[in-house]
Amino acid sequence: MLKLFEYNWQVRNEWFNWCEQADEHELTKERTGGMGSILYTLYHIVDVEYSWISGLQGREPQYVQFEDCADVRKLREYAARCRAEIAPFIHGWKDDLETNVLTDQNNEGEWENFSYGEIMRHVIAHEIHHIGQLSIWSREIGKKPVTANLIRRGLFKEEIKAEGKHSL
Amino acid sequence: MLKLFEYNWQVRNEWFNWCEQADEHELTKERTGGMGSILYTLYHIVDVEYSWISGLQGREPQYVQFEDCADVRKLREYAARCRAEIAPFIHGWKDDLETNVLTDQNNEGEWENFSYGEIMRHVIAHEIHHIGQLSIWSREIGKKPVTANLIRRGLFKEEIKAEGKHSL
Repeated sequence: MLKLFEYNWQVRNEWFNWCEQADEHELTKERTGGMGSILYTLYHIVDVEYSWISGLQGREPQYVQFEDCADVRKLREYAARCRAEIAPFIHGWKDDLETNVLTDQNNEGEWENFSYGEIMRHVIAHEIHHIGQLSIWSREIGKKPVTANLIRRGLFKEEIKAEGKHSL
Repeated sequence: MLKLFEYNWQVRNEWFNWCEQADEHELTKERTGGMGSILYTLYHIVDVEYSWISGLQGREPQYVQFEDCADVRKLREYAARCRAEIAPFIHGWKDDLETNVLTDQNNEGEWENFSYGEIMRHVIAHEIHHIGQLSIWSREIGKKPVTANLIRRGLFKEEIKAEGKHSL
């Protein structure tokens, strides 16, 4: 589970770097589909991860509204603060948390039960999906997107080293 | 790991259904970014999963070229055949396979080592990323995309039931 969060955090960071090299008006320009703009998509990714994982931690999240972090530097700072708050839970994840249940009220006011494992995977998939959307918009404005490859990121270096007997 | 493959297979199937309701020329129309068309993206998703997992199985994949399955019915059949071949490996996944190493030759002819855990997560993230791209194209042609939510799909029904003591 941790590896997929680390992957998302790497990719997200590379998108912040990408944003720093892009025209500012392209970042907030309204686009078709998804969350509507590049910067708002990145905000939404941070927001959704922070919200669900705070729920699993039993903490009250201290949100910042989009209007108050609607540039790359501020959003990056907000993302770093959110990540610092949730990281202990992600790093402390154990398989026996899988079947714990979070009870959450949805937008229609109904109470729903989710297993912790369901929430964790939802958060992972949520970010990857939205990053896929950014990659299309990136090409539309003529810029190369951040690579989405999970392999060749050094995320599994230790695992490969530990199995040296198989290496070339 | 299995849950994320099941999620991808559900979503993929819903995209095939979506394709059946779409104008055929929209499916093969060349688009900006990603793999260039909706149908080819779905082919690419099937192809990449089949290729990597066959590698982990030590099997020689029996590919079908895109030209030979370039409509929804044929691609669905090919996807079903590929999935049937790889499903035993996915269903039989155990954590102690994580650090096994696959040695693979890349496009530049260099040999690379990957842990099985790295490959599995790469395949999962690969599909979710490309599905995100489809969701943008879907809105561009004025159609509602398949939901990408991982929650509320019934994937964790058993886990919730087993923890009945927490339920409302």
